[in-house]
Amino acid sequence: MELQYALELTGTFVFAISGALAIREKEHDLFGAGFTGFITAIGGGTLRDILLNSYPLVWIGNVQVLYAILAGVLAAFIFPNFLSRLRKTFFLFDTLGIGFFTVLGVEKALSLGVRPEIAAIMGMFSAVMGGVIRDTLTNEIPILFRKEIYASACLAGAVVYLVLNYFGLERNYNLLISMSLIISIRLIAMKYKLSLPRLD
Amino acid sequence: MELQYALELTGTFVFAISGALAIREKEHDLFGAGFTGFITAIGGGTLRDILLNSYPLVWIGNVQVLYAILAGVLAAFIFPNFLSRLRKTFFLFDTLGIGFFTVLGVEKALSLGVRPEIAAIMGMFSAVMGGVIRDTLTNEIPILFRKEIYASACLAGAVVYLVLNYFGLERNYNLLISMSLIISIRLIAMKYKLSLPRLD
Amino acid sequence: MELQYALELTGTFVFAISGALAIREKEHDLFGAGFTGFITAIGGGTLRDILLNSYPLVWIGNVQVLYAILAGVLAAFIFPNFLSRLRKTFFLFDTLGIGFFTVLGVEKALSLGVRPEIAAIMGMFSAVMGGVIRDTLTNEIPILFRKEIYASACLAGAVVYLVLNYFGLERNYNLLISMSLIISIRLIAMKYKLSLPRLD
Repeated sequence: MELQYALELTGTFVFAISGALAIREKEHDLFGAGFTGFITAIGGGTLRDILLNSYPLVWIGNVQVLYAILAGVLAAFIFPNFLSRLRKTFFLFDTLGIGFFTVLGVEKALSLGVRPEIAAIMGMFSAVMGGVIRDTLTNEIPILFRKEIYASACLAGAVVYLVLNYFGLERNYNLLISMSLIISIRLIAMKYKLSLPRLD
Repeated sequence: MELQYALELTGTFVFAISGALAIREKEHDLFGAGFTGFITAIGGGTLRDILLNSYPLVWIGNVQVLYAILAGVLAAFIFPNFLSRLRKTFFLFDTLGIGFFTVLGVEKALSLGVRPEIAAIMGMFSAVMGGVIRDTLTNEIPILFRKEIYASACLAGAVVYLVLNYFGLERNYNLLISMSLIISIRLIAMKYKLSLPRLD
Repeated sequence: MELQYALELTGTFVFAISGALAIREKEHDLFGAGFTGFITAIGGGTLRDILLNSYPLVWIGNVQVLYAILAGVLAAFIFPNFLSRLRKTFFLFDTLGIGFFTVLGVEKALSLGVRPEIAAIMGMFSAVMGGVIRDTLTNEIPILFRKEIYASACLAGAVVYLVLNYFGLERNYNLLISMSLIISIRLIAMKYKLSLPRLD
């Protein structure tokens, strides 16, 4: 359980960095970048917990999460060029992050007693809605609507987790399989520029 | 009461279809269309229930609502051309839908003990905010701000419902009158391209 | 305490006016303007209270707040030219408003038992998120991301309030100092077009 908590803080830290750097090309000042990093890091989990009426919100009840975000924002301020050059590393971290937060979101929703269909949606929301809120606030087309497979990979992984969980697979194996699935779909989709068909 | 529930599921189904088809001309893939249909169908009621602290949210507590949405999204996927040709039929369904959901939203708010002024706002929110959230996420000018009378018709119907309710009119008559008012205002506004005056 | 309540209603009234007038140059009708005024006035406090799970929301539990908003919207409808000519006066009112609502938001969050770090964020959110939501809905770049120092002034004032509060300064002096700081930073930033550095 301590490994998981350390991973959560690390994931939050990475999401905050990538959020803050995401608006670097724009006219935004340091405060705007920090705000964007903050929203990116907390948005998905906050929406999930509001929808499920689970209070206190994680970053309000646990100040370490807030400090992980602040550390991410500060890192983006102090080393913007260094971190920007790590773009590929960050893409990898972000991909690990959405895999991780999806499965954690599914588990949290299940622990709150909702049906598996709802837990799948909540897992996906945990992973992607921070980025969606960030993009909406900064007048971008949300990442969800852009070309390559993204949120649908999270949804697929969430469903696989729930199916394997239903059949009684041990949690650690399940985590490994579901997260690997999300990460693989996302990496393959980016490499081969795969997207789902359009509606026409 | 069973008729009402059947109508609710039908309304949700129709809102999901029109939400999914709304982004057809865009670059969005099937997942984006499904997500948009989902948000359109649940957005208004979800916002109302969060503002009123009414949990569980309808689509989380009642899985049939979720399946009505999924059915609507699937229908939009399988028959996009057929459904798009029904544009006029959908406009009619959407108009029936906002009338119906406004009055239902007013009643739910009243049942939670809020003042009538708040219930009127909640009725309007139930009907229109799903579309507003959808438009905001997809970078459109929200339908609320476009030309023809739309949300104001819902607000007018909500106020009429509350006034007639105050004077003790029987519920079924009241539903019929208030919904008809919303639907008539909207249809007449579209036919004659009526809009409220601007602020100048 | 009665002075504070009168100030709150006045602040809400002013926020509603400036929200309604903010979209005057656009194609929006009276309803759109009223809706925008409403969202501007309630958005920040509503987001704060949802995040902190503090119900009923202020404008739902206290109908006088709702009427202050309606009065502001009506005033914008009846005297748009007169009020628009008061642009400078409104800028001043808005600046007083963000100072006032920041400190009030900090105090409300503290009274709900959260840590001071969270209270600082909630104070800033109370003051600025109504405008951010308004700008997002109307497809503007949120004021938060525009050039001159704005939300960061609120955050600075919130932190100062918390520090002075920690050291036991009497509340009235603290209010005066913290609000003056926010107002001064904002006025000086506008006069000399000061902005925080960018991330590069």
